[in-house]
Amino acid sequence: MKAEIITIGDEILLGQIVDTNSAWIAQELFAQQIQIQQITSITDQESHILKALADAGSRADIIICTGGLGPTKDDVTKFTAAKFFNTSLIHNPEVLSHVQQIFRQFGRTMPEINKGQAEVLANADVLFNDWGTAPGMWVEDKGKVYVFLPGVPFEMKNLMTFRVLPKLKDYKTEEKVVNKYILTVGIGESHLAEHIADIEDQFPSHIHLAYLPKIGLVRLRLTAVGNDLNSLEFEAEQWKEKLVSRIGGAVVATEDVSFEEVIVKSFSDSQLTLSTAESCTGGNIARLITEIPGSSKMFQGGIVAYVNEVKEHILGVEKETLIQHGAVSEETVVQMAKGVQQRLNTDYAIATSGIAGPDGGTDEKPVGTVWVAIAGKNDVKTKLFHFHHDRLINIERTTAQALLMLWNLFQQETKN
Amino acid sequence: MKAEIITIGDEILLGQIVDTNSAWIAQELFAQQIQIQQITSITDQESHILKALADAGSRADIIICTGGLGPTKDDVTKFTAAKFFNTSLIHNPEVLSHVQQIFRQFGRTMPEINKGQAEVLANADVLFNDWGTAPGMWVEDKGKVYVFLPGVPFEMKNLMTFRVLPKLKDYKTEEKVVNKYILTVGIGESHLAEHIADIEDQFPSHIHLAYLPKIGLVRLRLTAVGNDLNSLEFEAEQWKEKLVSRIGGAVVATEDVSFEEVIVKSFSDSQLTLSTAESCTGGNIARLITEIPGSSKMFQGGIVAYVNEVKEHILGVEKETLIQHGAVSEETVVQMAKGVQQRLNTDYAIATSGIAGPDGGTDEKPVGTVWVAIAGKNDVKTKLFHFHHDRLINIERTTAQALLMLWNLFQQETKN
Repeated sequence: MKAEIITIGDEILLGQIVDTNSAWIAQELFAQQIQIQQITSITDQESHILKALADAGSRADIIICTGGLGPTKDDVTKFTAAKFFNTSLIHNPEVLSHVQQIFRQFGRTMPEINKGQAEVLANADVLFNDWGTAPGMWVEDKGKVYVFLPGVPFEMKNLMTFRVLPKLKDYKTEEKVVNKYILTVGIGESHLAEHIADIEDQFPSHIHLAYLPKIGLVRLRLTAVGNDLNSLEFEAEQWKEKLVSRIGGAVVATEDVSFEEVIVKSFSDSQLTLSTAESCTGGNIARLITEIPGSSKMFQGGIVAYVNEVKEHILGVEKETLIQHGAVSEETVVQMAKGVQQRLNTDYAIATSGIAGPDGGTDEKPVGTVWVAIAGKNDVKTKLFHFHHDRLINIERTTAQALLMLWNLFQQETKN
Repeated sequence: MKAEIITIGDEILLGQIVDTNSAWIAQELFAQQIQIQQITSITDQESHILKALADAGSRADIIICTGGLGPTKDDVTKFTAAKFFNTSLIHNPEVLSHVQQIFRQFGRTMPEINKGQAEVLANADVLFNDWGTAPGMWVEDKGKVYVFLPGVPFEMKNLMTFRVLPKLKDYKTEEKVVNKYILTVGIGESHLAEHIADIEDQFPSHIHLAYLPKIGLVRLRLTAVGNDLNSLEFEAEQWKEKLVSRIGGAVVATEDVSFEEVIVKSFSDSQLTLSTAESCTGGNIARLITEIPGSSKMFQGGIVAYVNEVKEHILGVEKETLIQHGAVSEETVVQMAKGVQQRLNTDYAIATSGIAGPDGGTDEKPVGTVWVAIAGKNDVKTKLFHFHHDRLINIERTTAQALLMLWNLFQQETKN
């Protein structure tokens, strides 16, 4: 059972929004053993939509389209789909009363323009939208399934979860796929590849290994494709165990989890707590940790110490240190880490201070100069980084390195 | 001049990574008047890559491919491209010594596997990669340009910026496009559309309006397409001014900026400062503000008060309040806002407290219950929200609503 995603909207092709919908849809479908073969992002032009629908329909069994269902003139997906299926739009009174009710709920009158939201494809099952005004539509045509959903992530996710995924349960694929994951830290992609090359060489042809590197991390995905789910599961697990035992200490997880999830779980299991004192990362480390469900078990809180006054008065960094060494210095970042560790009474603490850019650099400390400190139960580790000139990348790299340093100190102190 | 992007990698189709590269590339090309017509994400299979290259080459003039250039066995882009162009791979000694040097720099020996990184397409101009081991390649074939770049965002961005974009300067498009932007807050998409419908009806056929809604915001994009850049610019500006004057107070920006940028600029211009006290948003508000260059002018810092002890000891929320009303209450969130405002000595402060989920909900306060408070110069505003059950969406919606409330109070207090 092959599926494709078509995302419709000029804003995607102008780069004004990042398409986060497709990754989410792909994950959800894959959990039901339906694999996405292609994702195509196209403009709002009728000819482009017609072509994409025809192409996807010639390759895949299930086509999920998002976007272009709003009430305004730039939204043409519904009208184009009617043309594609050689059908018409019909008025659905149930949808209309639902849209009217949404506006009533917020104490507003429904603009006339929203009446059009109640026009649906004549050949569609309506996917009622309890989270917005644009209904989804499910069309079966020439043995293929076409699903039309609004592009607003919140509405799309709810429609997928409560309307589309349950209907797709009936569409089972014959070819089964099993994926296994290994998350490694602190070993480069090519060193890792060399280290396991002889195992990879022994793989039968239906088993395949992918390397997914991120800053400081490599995720391995072992994919087994075949007809019998149980034997694939068994086989893939055996190869995974071979790889894990070869890679050894660099393995931090043997499931499909993020590094942040590993940290949250490890700290929680060890009943250890964490706090953060962030300058150049501006809350990004705290944000990533607290995005993980259950992080409140181990994360106590953090201080975003953006100006020196906050470093001094809330974190207790000495004025003398700030004057003599500056905010971006080993001395300051150590005091920040120890300060937040003490004030928030945590076992571990992360501190960052650097020049994220684009302004604020000097000859001595150019943009990209970053100090990170990790305070642990017995030790404080520090490291100086020289990144480049892009603010967002500097924040991202500092965050990744700080989490790696935290993990290393945690490993070291809990092993001893 | 039409361009397409092809992103190659199973991890995209499995939903394991969100393709952020394409939006970035689209923005950069658009700044050079080159419009992306389609983005296609495909698997690492040879047949799929060959088909995508042929299809894109039949439609576009410039084809940017990312991904699949790593040293490991799952990376097949280079070999497939050689087949596509009916050429071979040749050894490039300059690339090899560069790769060796990268490993030396980190005090490591180069794994054998990396030798392959020095094999490049025989028909390509090599785009030397100072940021990683995989060189980019620029191929001109049958009047089309094909660019191959690694998928690692950091390497891709540097190669685009320093190698590809300068070369593309010679490729000028005949059809010119001018975009104008209006950012509005606090007015729904369909109300906005009704309010400006008569102006939109008067647009000539080469001018087009798109509605880009986000939580609480609608961005309008006015696009003018034609041959003469100056007259398009003039015409688009005039229509924009008509729209702005009709929409009135809901307009917060008339450029392509984010709402966070508007807030940072407005506070900086008014010499006002901001701090945050975040519980359920876990640092996400501080993170978004500090991602904006120059935010250090107005953002002093923030407290991520994840546990009650931090709310009490760092923010000064009364123990009695926490016991009597709970952490998720109007009383607590007001004290959080006033506490951080006072301790960090800022003009404005944002506080959030809620149950992000999936755990922690009760009958009285189910998951999605969120209080937000904004402390201003004279006033404190609070609001209770009932969101739904997805942790990340709850964080995102709370963040958006808090920024809107901040903006409203700022407007109210600076107008008076």
